[in-house]
This record gives sequence, structure tokens and C-alpha cells, in this order.
Amino acid sequence: MKKTIAVLPGDGIGPEVVGSALRVLDQLAEQFNHQFDYTFADIGGCAVDQHENPLPDQTLDVCRQSDAIILGAVGGPKWDQLAPEMRPEKGLLKLRKELQLFANLRPVTCFESLLDASPLKPERIKGVDFIIVRELTGGIYFGEPRERKGEGSDELAIDTLTYTRHEIERIVRKGFELAQVRRGKVTSVDKANVLESSRLWREVVERVAADYPDVSYEHMLVDNAAMQLIRQPAYFDVVVTENMFGDILSDEASMLTGSLGMLPSASLSAVGPSLYEPIHGSAPDIAGTNKANPLATISSVAMLLKYEFGLEEEARVLDEAVSAVLESGVRTADLAKEGEAQASTDEVTDEVIKQ
Amino acid sequence: MKKTIAVLPGDGIGPEVVGSALRVLDQLAEQFNHQFDYTFADIGGCAVDQHENPLPDQTLDVCRQSDAIILGAVGGPKWDQLAPEMRPEKGLLKLRKELQLFANLRPVTCFESLLDASPLKPERIKGVDFIIVRELTGGIYFGEPRERKGEGSDELAIDTLTYTRHEIERIVRKGFELAQVRRGKVTSVDKANVLESSRLWREVVERVAADYPDVSYEHMLVDNAAMQLIRQPAYFDVVVTENMFGDILSDEASMLTGSLGMLPSASLSAVGPSLYEPIHGSAPDIAGTNKANPLATISSVAMLLKYEFGLEEEARVLDEAVSAVLESGVRTADLAKEGEAQASTDEVTDEVIKQ
Ligand SMILES: CC(C)[C@H](C(=O)O)[C@@H](O)C(=O)O
Ligand SMILES: CC(C)[C@H](C(=O)O)[C@@H](O)C(=O)O
Repeated sequence: MKKTIAVLPGDGIGPEVVGSALRVLDQLAEQFNHQFDYTFADIGGCAVDQHENPLPDQTLDVCRQSDAIILGAVGGPKWDQLAPEMRPEKGLLKLRKELQLFANLRPVTCFESLLDASPLKPERIKGVDFIIVRELTGGIYFGEPRERKGEGSDELAIDTLTYTRHEIERIVRKGFELAQVRRGKVTSVDKANVLESSRLWREVVERVAADYPDVSYEHMLVDNAAMQLIRQPAYFDVVVTENMFGDILSDEASMLTGSLGMLPSASLSAVGPSLYEPIHGSAPDIAGTNKANPLATISSVAMLLKYEFGLEEEARVLDEAVSAVLESGVRTADLAKEGEAQASTDEVTDEVIKQ
Repeated sequence: MKKTIAVLPGDGIGPEVVGSALRVLDQLAEQFNHQFDYTFADIGGCAVDQHENPLPDQTLDVCRQSDAIILGAVGGPKWDQLAPEMRPEKGLLKLRKELQLFANLRPVTCFESLLDASPLKPERIKGVDFIIVRELTGGIYFGEPRERKGEGSDELAIDTLTYTRHEIERIVRKGFELAQVRRGKVTSVDKANVLESSRLWREVVERVAADYPDVSYEHMLVDNAAMQLIRQPAYFDVVVTENMFGDILSDEASMLTGSLGMLPSASLSAVGPSLYEPIHGSAPDIAGTNKANPLATISSVAMLLKYEFGLEEEARVLDEAVSAVLESGVRTADLAKEGEAQASTDEVTDEVIKQ
């Protein structure tokens, strides 16, 4: 198989973890006789520095012309004081919108070998294996108007949360489709007792559900979901929700298994190539120190191989290598137990390649 | 001291837990020589049933004429299919708005004797003692427009998140004031990398902070806050945030200590009497079975005595009685360990009175 991949390392530890993932991908390509061609492009703070634009046109072009996209992370204190339009995050938000990356998939799985690292008691997280399906191009992230009005103590700030039936339907369908190949259970999260958009959301879920008689589903209020994720995380299979709720709940969920540095994500496009990135941020405090955990990015590459290129076998091999490394005890600082040796980014990468 | 209290038992277990709290309050009144006069009124589902209105005018009048308000809980499946305007929650939202209950205080404390009941490892929650200060009468709960437009797959639902500088300032001040009498640390939670209202929020926090040089403060993004609450809950002192974020984070936080049935809340008014209620819901599944945990409502009464009537000593006695009961092992089903005897609502109440 011959494919092109746009590579956007971004800021902070982005370049390091992406570098690791590409090394692993190269090895896999050799092993399975594929050819992956990378084209690098800038996004986020480094793009602001070089092009005065957190998402230069050429980056968009590179992405559009590729078969898939790998992203590291964006942002850092260096760019925090810039105007909203120039901030690194804006580059990411614009990329999502331009490429119609409407479905953000965030699997949360419990690695047996990391039970200790979790803030939760082992019996609560044993067997946790769910996926959060977050809408990524609508809702309050993009609704208009978003503005300031008036002056003095009456000065008013406005944000707008909008969803069309179409936008809701495509993300909800994605949730039901995933449930079909998983354990057949969808939890749709909303705030229908308060929000008009959530009431429309519920209507759409009811309608879509009728097309998937083999999938069971339920509605859950977002406040309750925030509780249940802690109380009984193993209860969930597929959680589908709107943009902002998905942002909050998926970050909450990422903490459950104590493996933030482990969790991959995919952002699927409605029209073109999809994007794969670790869910952790740019961690500016450890950037350049060879300490970052590359496993989330490596697992994101596994998602890419499976979802984008249909390479199930290759993805499985990669996932197994990651598990094996964890079990071998070679761990970066974020996962190492107290007193245990801390491996570097490179060492962990070598270990994955070996496995 | 002679005071009047509006009592709104509400639905589900509301009447039981409020009944318990009043028995305790009566005992305390006798002991300390106070006179508390109760006026009962309907809210929520029971008000819909009796007056076809989840918040009848007479209930509002009773509240306005009282020195404080005690609420049980509202809602239940019986009323879930009603039109939005007739739903029990609408009664609560309207009450908040009408009485300008702008500041919802939710303390989260770890009871040593309940360490076992928490989903988190004991070392993570030991010493947890923070308070969430949630804005309660603004934001996306009340912003206009909130409507549906268009048809077919383009049908659009709209909600609006608005905040004025004034609304933000009064809640942020409340947070800083509380920090002054606590450990002097405010964490302001927003989503300033996306929301215009959060950027105004940050500006206001900066300005207000200047008036409290003895309090340290920081900004935290809501997604990160959802993580840190699990990762290091003992880190927090005062968390101040807007309405919807506060809804989600405070429910998440309520799970940390494994004592949802224990947690009280106060909703302070800008103009008149304030409202005190347990943070748990109406639990229709156990309503009427004498199984509900009355301690959250009893602790809410302790907050009432302290914040509303300035009765510090009485509040302390009550809080100590609650702790003592927990230690004595007399526990309702939600807290009892496996195999342990489960006490009824009445038994726990008797035990508090005894203590
Ligand atoms: C950087 C930020 C705008 C972004 C979001 O809120 O979507 C991030 O938190 C994420 O979840 O990918
Ligand atoms: C019942 C509901 C409208 C309410 C809210 O979201 O404010 C509840 O969840 C709460 O937190 O008091």
C-alpha cells in the first residue's frame, strides 16, 4: 500500500512524540511492505512564529492533498497573550472546521499493567473500555454571534450554541455505527432539561436509534454523566455528545485510567482525510527533554492504520507492541511508579519497535 | 432568636429528608432557645399536580416573606414528558431567577470515616476540603434567544450564553470573600481559549483579584479542571465558575468523596432570603421507603444556621453530630459497606438528634 500522510508536529512535545510515532510507523511499513510518504507542515505557535498565522494556507493544502493527517499538539505560554485570532488553538479549531473533522473519537481503555497509576480504586476501573464520540465542528465553539456589547458594568459577552438536525444526525449515526461493532450500547449525553439544542439532540437520537435495532441506547444528563464516569466507568460502551460536553467529559475520562499519556484520538472528516492525534497537550514544561510519553501518539497511528487505511492487522500488531512495552515496565516519568526507573521518549520508542 | 423559614419539600425523597432535617432543627432550637417558624409550600412535580404550575405564585410569596428557605428536591419520571414550561426543573430555575439566588455554594469535604466509600484511592482524597462557587442565575441557562428555526435537516436549535460584567463580578467577589476565610486560594474556571464570555470572565477576575491581595488565584480551563478534580482534589480551596461549568464540575466533585448523599448546598440571594438544599436529586426509586440519607439536608440546615442566621455555634454542633453519626457506623444504604447493617432515614435522624 502506498499512502501520503500530512505530518503536523506543532508545539512543545509535539515534535518529539510525532518523531517517535514516525519511527515506529517506518518500521511497520518496512515489515508489512507499505510506503508512507510524509509531508511536514506547521500549525499552532510555530506557525505563528514562522508565518504569522496559526493555520497557514499551505498547511491546509498539504492536509487536503494527503490520505491522512498526524498531529502532535499545539499551544504554550509563549503565545498565550496573543489576540484570539493568532492563538495556536485557533489554528486547530480552524483546521477542524475547514476539513470538516466532525467526529472526534476518544477511546478510553484500562491497561491492566497501569491499574496502579489510576486515581481510582482498581476494582472500579478494571475492564473499562469505552469510547467517547464528540461532535467537533459545531455547538458553542463556532456559533454566531460571539461578541461583546455595551460598556461599564452592563458590558455583555455573548456566545451562541447552535446545532442543526443534520449536524446532530451525522455524529449520532457515527456513535450507533461504532456501537454495532462494539458492545451495542449508546449513551447519549445532553442537558435536555435546560437547553433547546439538547432537546433537538434527543429527538434526533430517538429517530436515528430506530435505524439500529441491534443497539440499545439511553439519554443521560451531562451532570449525571460527569458523576457516572467516576462512579462506574466500566458501565459505558459508546458515549456520544456535543462539542463542549465532549471536551469536558473526555478530559475527565482520560484521568480515570491514570494514563493520560496513553490515550489516542481520531477526528474523522465528513469529506476528506481524517486527523489522528494524542489527546494530551503540548506540555511545554518538559518539551525538548526527551521525557514525553510517545505512546498516545503511537496509538493514534494505530487508529489511523485501522480507520483510515483499513490495515487491521498492522494496527493490532502496534496495539500489542504498546501493551507489551507497558508490561515490560519500560515507562516514561508520567507512568513510572515511585522509585522506578524512568525511561526516555527514545527508549520507549525503541522498545515499541523491538516488540 | 426568632426566624421564619419557608419549607419546600418537593418531590421524591424530598419530603422525607426535609422532615428529618426539621426534626433535627426543632431539637436544636429547643436546646439553644430559638424559635423557627415553618411555612410549607409546593414546588416541582407536586406543584404541577396541585396547581398546574411548577412554581406557584404563593410559593414565591412564602419564600419572599421568610428569613430563609429549605428545599428538598424536585423532579421524577412522572413529569418527564411534560412541556418544558411545566417541568419540575423549571420551577427550580424560576425560583433561582426570581429570588436572585446567584451564588450556589457547594462544599466538598472528605469524611475520614467514609474513605472506603469513595471510588478514588484513599491517598487521593485524604484532606479534600474545597468549595465550588457556581454562578446560578446567568449564562446559558437563561440567555436569549433560545429557540428552534427552520425545517428538515436544516432545522436549527439555538441557545445563548450571556454574562454581564456585573453578573460575573458579584460571583467572583463571593469566591474571593470565601477564600479569605478559608485557605486563601481561588481557582477560576473558564474556557477562555474558546468562549467570548470566558474572556470577559477572566478580565473581571483579574480586576476583582486586585481588591484581595491576601488571596492567591489562578485561571484553569474547564477541561483541565475536570481532570484535576480527579487527579488531585486536595489541591483546591475555592473554585469559582459559571453556571453550566459549575453544574458539571460540582456533580463530578460530589462523587469524589463517595458521599453524594452527604453534600449540602447554599444558594445565596443578592436581595432576599437564601436557599439551602442537599445537592442530591429526588431519587424517585427509593421515595417513600425510609431509605434516603438525610445527612445532606441536615448539613444544609447547618449551612443555613451559619450563613443566614450567623449561628456559628449551633452550626458547629450540628456538623459535629453528623460526623459522630458517621463514625458510629449508623449509615443509610448509600454509605453502608457490603454486609453492614443499613439504617433507615429515621434511625439516622434519631442518631443525629441523640448526638
Ligand atoms: C485547544 C482547545 C481549543 C481544544 C478544545 O477545547 O477542543 C482542546 O481542549 C481539545 O479538546 O482538543
Ligand atoms: C435540575 C437542573 C435544572 C439543575 C441544574 O442543572 O442547575 C440541577 O442539575 C442542579 O444542579 O441543581
